[in-house]
Amino acid sequence: MGRLVLLLLLAFLMPGLAIPVPPALKALSNLHLSTSFTSRPSVVMKYSIHYIEQKIDHFGFKNDKTFNQRYLIADQHWRKEGGSILFYTGNEGDIIWFCNNTGFMWDVAEELKAMLVFAEHRYYGQSLPFGADAFRDSRHLNFLTSEQALADFAELIKHLKRTIPGAENQPFIALGGSYGGMLAAWFRMKYPHIVVGALAASAPIWQFEDIVPCGVFMKIVTKDFKRSGPNCSESIQRSWDAINRLTRNGTGLDWLSEALHLCTPLKNAHDVQHLKDWISETWVVCQYLKNPNLSDKKLLQNIFQALNVYYNYSGQARCLNMSETSTSSLGTLGWSYQACTEIVMPFCTNGIDDMFEPHPWDLKAFSDECFKQWGVKPRPSWITSMYGGKNISSHTNIIFSNGDLDPWSGGGVTKNITNTLVAIIIPEGAHHLDLRANNAFDPMTVLLARTLEVKYMKQWIRDFYASPRKKH
Amino acid sequence: MGRLVLLLLLAFLMPGLAIPVPPALKALSNLHLSTSFTSRPSVVMKYSIHYIEQKIDHFGFKNDKTFNQRYLIADQHWRKEGGSILFYTGNEGDIIWFCNNTGFMWDVAEELKAMLVFAEHRYYGQSLPFGADAFRDSRHLNFLTSEQALADFAELIKHLKRTIPGAENQPFIALGGSYGGMLAAWFRMKYPHIVVGALAASAPIWQFEDIVPCGVFMKIVTKDFKRSGPNCSESIQRSWDAINRLTRNGTGLDWLSEALHLCTPLKNAHDVQHLKDWISETWVVCQYLKNPNLSDKKLLQNIFQALNVYYNYSGQARCLNMSETSTSSLGTLGWSYQACTEIVMPFCTNGIDDMFEPHPWDLKAFSDECFKQWGVKPRPSWITSMYGGKNISSHTNIIFSNGDLDPWSGGGVTKNITNTLVAIIIPEGAHHLDLRANNAFDPMTVLLARTLEVKYMKQWIRDFYASPRKKH
Repeated sequence: MGRLVLLLLLAFLMPGLAIPVPPALKALSNLHLSTSFTSRPSVVMKYSIHYIEQKIDHFGFKNDKTFNQRYLIADQHWRKEGGSILFYTGNEGDIIWFCNNTGFMWDVAEELKAMLVFAEHRYYGQSLPFGADAFRDSRHLNFLTSEQALADFAELIKHLKRTIPGAENQPFIALGGSYGGMLAAWFRMKYPHIVVGALAASAPIWQFEDIVPCGVFMKIVTKDFKRSGPNCSESIQRSWDAINRLTRNGTGLDWLSEALHLCTPLKNAHDVQHLKDWISETWVVCQYLKNPNLSDKKLLQNIFQALNVYYNYSGQARCLNMSETSTSSLGTLGWSYQACTEIVMPFCTNGIDDMFEPHPWDLKAFSDECFKQWGVKPRPSWITSMYGGKNISSHTNIIFSNGDLDPWSGGGVTKNITNTLVAIIIPEGAHHLDLRANNAFDPMTVLLARTLEVKYMKQWIRDFYASPRKKH
Repeated sequence: MGRLVLLLLLAFLMPGLAIPVPPALKALSNLHLSTSFTSRPSVVMKYSIHYIEQKIDHFGFKNDKTFNQRYLIADQHWRKEGGSILFYTGNEGDIIWFCNNTGFMWDVAEELKAMLVFAEHRYYGQSLPFGADAFRDSRHLNFLTSEQALADFAELIKHLKRTIPGAENQPFIALGGSYGGMLAAWFRMKYPHIVVGALAASAPIWQFEDIVPCGVFMKIVTKDFKRSGPNCSESIQRSWDAINRLTRNGTGLDWLSEALHLCTPLKNAHDVQHLKDWISETWVVCQYLKNPNLSDKKLLQNIFQALNVYYNYSGQARCLNMSETSTSSLGTLGWSYQACTEIVMPFCTNGIDDMFEPHPWDLKAFSDECFKQWGVKPRPSWITSMYGGKNISSHTNIIFSNGDLDPWSGGGVTKNITNTLVAIIIPEGAHHLDLRANNAFDPMTVLLARTLEVKYMKQWIRDFYASPRKKH
């Protein structure tokens, strides 16, 4: 059960409610890939903070403005002889947060004689092109793309090789989790001359277009709920109709607002939809939901108990505030823009294979909303054009790790593609659990995964040192 | 001798005099990579003309304007069963011109059951973003980069797969010569999911930064001159000082203007520099330059004879016009911009290893001139960041062919890198002679090269059909 709570905390992080349709999927289509769980590292995390001047536009020459990209370095265990450099390809958030939450890198630094570098993704944390104006409009946001971020990483590594004595002749390995894992994999694909390999943890690189079914994510969520105990998913599944029935009239709206201790009472159908979305985001606890065969009112009172555990963990709140979700540390504006442009991940539910109300993926409505919010239109097939979709077998040296419990594994690489593009499945693993620090409660499976990952990385390092090196 | 004339016609094409420094290298730094030689194909070239709507900016979402990219299709020999698609990655000029000058593709179409596609490079021929405004300023030119061109090619191939029945499940092979050869190689490196391999003919992918010595190009030119007969390169080498001595005063200026039959007499040192640059561009004939040990005046009269063969081949011109060079069919404006931004190729001479006046490579001066002309500054290291410089061994299925006589071979890949990144040297070959149509005068070496190229392409096609195919 504890693992499930963790899993869903990880899986359901939302950047507010930036994109208000399609209804129940509003938040889903905009799902953050990251996590808000802070792991306890087994080593002291001591790093220095640096900045590099980067071109705002790597792909054009008209705009020669620059911004400062932040990165962190930890070199306690680095050895100039036979060492390596582990490079975290930062994702949608403050890099210090990812640094603190990627204990795996700290745990293996000594064994790999590795310098650790954590590079912040542009438009997140302190790495803001145009500073405070970064999110003002689509003109300022125009340089927030994965291609620009990868080019930042490439230029940063060239800079490190040039400026840190001893770094020039060392192998760099890309690591990242979630969207950061996608970046790590894409970085190796596009810049194999710069990193010798990549560990892409829980990277749903196939959650695009129709490469995987749009329902796979919520199907796995539902499967996890079923696994956690009897009747929970059935209770949730039933609750949608119960809400619909009860809120047909004012009395029902009042009753439900009170039963759920909402700070702002429900007034109309729009509020009810918002309520359902808000509840969908927060399905984390099942202990109050053992019996789906209750009256509508009893069922919804149990739903309140469950919500209360999630939102009112301190016990201090007198009512539940639907404008509150749990992702303050992540860059919600930036991610919402990315989801509206390149990172277009179709999600859908059918209410049969999953416990949610049925909602098809509606690209048209999604696109219209994006245009309304950002003045841009998504290009859903671009990521496949750029990064190859399923046709990636000509690349080498990428580890794709996925937790079996993680709904993102539905869009991940879960089978070996070649003997150097390998998949690691962690049967009891949640969203990139393998990148977390070693922990006494880790299941054996994740320990094995980490061991295997180190083994591959050591092989890449050995291959690097065994081959003739070139300056450029 | 005939071959040498051809070689230098090929090697010395200039886009006017767009960038007026550093002096003697002014034109060199801006060398067109292409050729103006029209080969006679052994087959009838029948193609249809098409247009595809392309995003002007593939790498941003603010600008959603489009332009029409032109491409040509020839499918007389295409077979839906077991066929292939040869895709010419157009370079800096009108695509019809490249289509007519790449007889190799026409000659092998039947054997490979191949459809031929010739894709025009954006900002050349009829494929102009912003139409007539394309070259107006750096804002309109901002989307003229190799990355955008490659993205056009990728989107075009996806479009062909979608719209031509039978094309979806066929292997695409990229081919190109000179800058087009660089694009073919880079296309395979960056989009290996889209093309199964690339034939990169005479592609100087290493003529950047200090990957090869900046003097290598002119050294090979000089070597070719030496090879063509005794004393020619010595005559040329001596001529610079002879010009300098003679033009110290007005009488000398007049004498020289008359001796060279210049349409506009030389007036000052600036004109003399222009003269030397103009002569440097046109060193193609050596039969009048057998004896370097003549008086200054006799030597320069011989120089006139040589120039006259090059510029006054019809015998009709009464004087020689220094504003005339030989590259009308190529997109000189576009190439000048590309040379000032991404495609920054250092050239230099030292007067010792080569027959030219010494001129070091002066990036600062070059950059200043670029800024003056285009309002942009070159980023000379970007191509290496993007495409890997010498560190390209993780890629596969690229043939690099180079003619031994071709000065561009100095920046090319002339040794095998791995067993799928192979070099083919054509001992008597000029600039991408292998891409030309079969011709009775072809040396045996180029016939062998073409045979080998077909053998590799057939292997890629076989591998493609032997492996499981994927939709994305």
